[in-house]
Amino acid sequence: MTKQKPLILVTNDDGYQAKGIKALTNSLKGLGEIVVVAPDGPRSGMSSAITSLYPIRIHLLQEETDFKIYSCTGTPVDCIKLAVSEVLDRKPDLVVTGINHGSNASVAVLYSGTMGAAMEGCVFKIPSIGFSLLDHSMHADFSTSEKITRLLSEKVLAEGLPKGTCLNVNIPNTKDLKGIKICRQTSGNWTNEFQKSKDGSYKDVYWLTGEFANDEPNDENTDEHVLARDYVSVVPVKIDMTDHNYISTIKSWESLI
Amino acid sequence: MTKQKPLILVTNDDGYQAKGIKALTNSLKGLGEIVVVAPDGPRSGMSSAITSLYPIRIHLLQEETDFKIYSCTGTPVDCIKLAVSEVLDRKPDLVVTGINHGSNASVAVLYSGTMGAAMEGCVFKIPSIGFSLLDHSMHADFSTSEKITRLLSEKVLAEGLPKGTCLNVNIPNTKDLKGIKICRQTSGNWTNEFQKSKDGSYKDVYWLTGEFANDEPNDENTDEHVLARDYVSVVPVKIDMTDHNYISTIKSWESLI
Repeated sequence: MTKQKPLILVTNDDGYQAKGIKALTNSLKGLGEIVVVAPDGPRSGMSSAITSLYPIRIHLLQEETDFKIYSCTGTPVDCIKLAVSEVLDRKPDLVVTGINHGSNASVAVLYSGTMGAAMEGCVFKIPSIGFSLLDHSMHADFSTSEKITRLLSEKVLAEGLPKGTCLNVNIPNTKDLKGIKICRQTSGNWTNEFQKSKDGSYKDVYWLTGEFANDEPNDENTDEHVLARDYVSVVPVKIDMTDHNYISTIKSWESLI
Repeated sequence: MTKQKPLILVTNDDGYQAKGIKALTNSLKGLGEIVVVAPDGPRSGMSSAITSLYPIRIHLLQEETDFKIYSCTGTPVDCIKLAVSEVLDRKPDLVVTGINHGSNASVAVLYSGTMGAAMEGCVFKIPSIGFSLLDHSMHADFSTSEKITRLLSEKVLAEGLPKGTCLNVNIPNTKDLKGIKICRQTSGNWTNEFQKSKDGSYKDVYWLTGEFANDEPNDENTDEHVLARDYVSVVPVKIDMTDHNYISTIKSWESLI
C-alpha cells in the first residue's frame, strides 16, 4: 500500500478570490492534496468568530487532481470547522491560512481572522500556520512570500508542531528579506482608532482606523522589531491563554467566599 | 479635592437588553460611575472581531446619576474601543463584561465575545473581567452570580491586575456554590459540530451545534473540572499568546534562509 499524500487544508480571511490565498496554494504545489475552504468574500478582523444564529452554506467551485476549492458563507473559523467535520474524508496533516493582505503582528493576532483560523486548526490538534504579508493592497506582490510559505509548510509537514501551539508568520513587504527570526508577540495597542463622519442622513458614524503604538520599541526579540528590520517574524502562538504564573498569586482569593 | 469615583465600563455579547448585563450592572451599584456601551442585539461567538468595512453607530439610551447606557451597532470589542476612544472622558478603572448567558470555559475563551471584550480592556491596560453563567437561557437566574460579580469587581478595583492579564470567570448554575477556584483553561474541542438541514429551496445548509470533548477530565485544576464540582472558576488570561518555551526549540529554523 502506498502512503497517502499529505492533506493540506487552506483558508484565509480575505476570501477565496484574494491574490494572497492563490499565492499560498501556488506555493504548496506538489506537497500533497490541497483543499481550499475559504470565505466567499472579505472577513478581515473576524478573529475566532463563529456563526451560530445563521445557517452556513458551502459550494464546490473547482475540482482538479489534488486540488479543490470550496467557498463558504461563514467566518474563517467556520471554514476550518466545516472542512474538518463535513468536507474532508480524513484529518488534514497541515492547516495553512493566508497569505493575509496586511500585518498580523503584535496584538493583531487577537483580531485576525487568518490567525483565528490557524488557531482553530490547532484546537483540532492539526499543525497550523497563519501567513501574512505587510501590504494591505489587493494587488500586493506575493512572489517573495511564496518562498517563505513553501519553506515553512515543508518544515512543519516534516517536523510537526507541539499540541496547542501554532505559528504566526509575518513577512515584510520587500524583495530583500534579511532572514527569519523566531520571536515573541509585541506588546502594544492601537490609538486614534476612529474617524468620525456623517451618513446620508447627516447622522454621526464611526469608522475604524488608527495607528499602532508599540510599547517596547527597543526589544530585539519582538515581531514588530524584527519586521522593521526586514526579517520574517515567526511567533509560536499558544491556544492555552492561561497566565499560569499568576495562578499562585491570587490563590488566596479562593477564601473570598 | 475629593477623589473621583471609580469609572466602570460594562459591555457584553448578548446585547444591552439581556438579563445578564442588567444583573451585572445591578451588582455594581454604589461602586462608582457605571457606563454601559453594549451591542444593540446578540453578538454571541464574535470573539475579538472588529468592524472595519462598515460604519459603527452609538446611541445614548439612558442617563441617570452615575449610570449611563449606550447601545452600539458593532461587536463587543468595537464597544470597548468606542467607549475608551470616543465616549468616556477618562480612562476606566475597571472593565467588566457579561454576565454571559452560557459558559465561556475551556477553548470557548477563543470564540467568546464576552471574553473578546475583556481582553480588549486588557489591551488598553485596564483591569478587566469577563463573567459567564453556565445557563444559556434568556431567563436564567443571575441572583447567585450577582454576589460573585460584586465580590470580584471590588477585589480587582482594590488590587488591580498585572498588565496584559485579565480574568475569565465562569459561574455554575446552582444556588449552592461550593466556593471559588483559581485554575487554568481546560484543553478540549467541540465534536459533531454541525447539523445538516435544508433551506426553503431544499438546498443544504449547516447549523453550528456540537458537544464539548474534554481532553483532561481528571485534572483538578482546570476550569471545566472545578465547574463540574459547583465551584466558580477564575482563569487568569494573558493577551500575550506567545509560546515562550517553544521559541528556543525552533531557533534553528532561523538558518532556513
